[in-house]
Amino acid sequence: MTTATATVSVLTAEDVLKNWQGHRGLTRRTIEAFPEDKLFSFSIGGMRPFSEMATEFIRMTVPIVEGVATGKWAEFGAGASPATKLTTKQEILALWDAQTAELDAKFPTIPPHRFAEADKAFGQWEMSGIAMIQYAIDNEIHHRGQAYVYLRALGIEPPHFWER
Amino acid sequence: MTTATATVSVLTAEDVLKNWQGHRGLTRRTIEAFPEDKLFSFSIGGMRPFSEMATEFIRMTVPIVEGVATGKWAEFGAGASPATKLTTKQEILALWDAQTAELDAKFPTIPPHRFAEADKAFGQWEMSGIAMIQYAIDNEIHHRGQAYVYLRALGIEPPHFWER
Repeated sequence: MTTATATVSVLTAEDVLKNWQGHRGLTRRTIEAFPEDKLFSFSIGGMRPFSEMATEFIRMTVPIVEGVATGKWAEFGAGASPATKLTTKQEILALWDAQTAELDAKFPTIPPHRFAEADKAFGQWEMSGIAMIQYAIDNEIHHRGQAYVYLRALGIEPPHFWER
Repeated sequence: MTTATATVSVLTAEDVLKNWQGHRGLTRRTIEAFPEDKLFSFSIGGMRPFSEMATEFIRMTVPIVEGVATGKWAEFGAGASPATKLTTKQEILALWDAQTAELDAKFPTIPPHRFAEADKAFGQWEMSGIAMIQYAIDNEIHHRGQAYVYLRALGIEPPHFWER
């Protein structure tokens, strides 16, 4: 790669936050599209129901931003809310909305040098701050895609992928 | 967002290319994991078989990079290879590998200013160059996640998501 192109900045922190929140909005609509019981029970091929995948996103999102911002990593899932198992769609959506606000508040507190700095996320995964954030976004896209198959199998039209 | 954090560059062009090729490697292993016949026939809920999704990735990847690099957009799908329908796993993988090399060769030819510049991709989608590239990557993650459900439904273990 020519040096000029290789080192050009293509995304700022603000772009990444905006992209993430756009994806999170789509994921919220995907959660909403599930009938209450299917959200917690429907699965294909022995995979997790979408409620568990959505809970995983909740366990990752704010704890990752806090870890990148401060270098302090909660024990994965343990320190993070929800401490108890979520049992209703309303509980999941309420936590989701709380995290949307928390993400907007905490993301800007990440010191600029922490995006590139290597750290051991949750004491386990050694990577840069931006790589950990990107992983969380990619993981959400990946599992939300699976939820689209669940919805189609249930005869439900998923939200448009391109609407963020 | 504080100005310092908002405007900090978190990803260079080289990072984006590396991330994309990492995802493309995982998608290649996902294609490989399908039995030949299931790749072209298996689906859930009326969705496309994974062969068609993989062909969509092929129709997007290099044409998007060419469009961002040059401002010339092939008619979507039409100008791009494959011109004809792919009918074997080997054909898909061969085109995949050709695109891997093409992507490495063409991505660095994108003039730095074109990442942020707005354009009308394929005469249809108005967005910046980096947004179009990010859309292609996200679209690949989304549909590959769906292929994981197909594989699980077939009793096949998909490749590890975190291995790129």
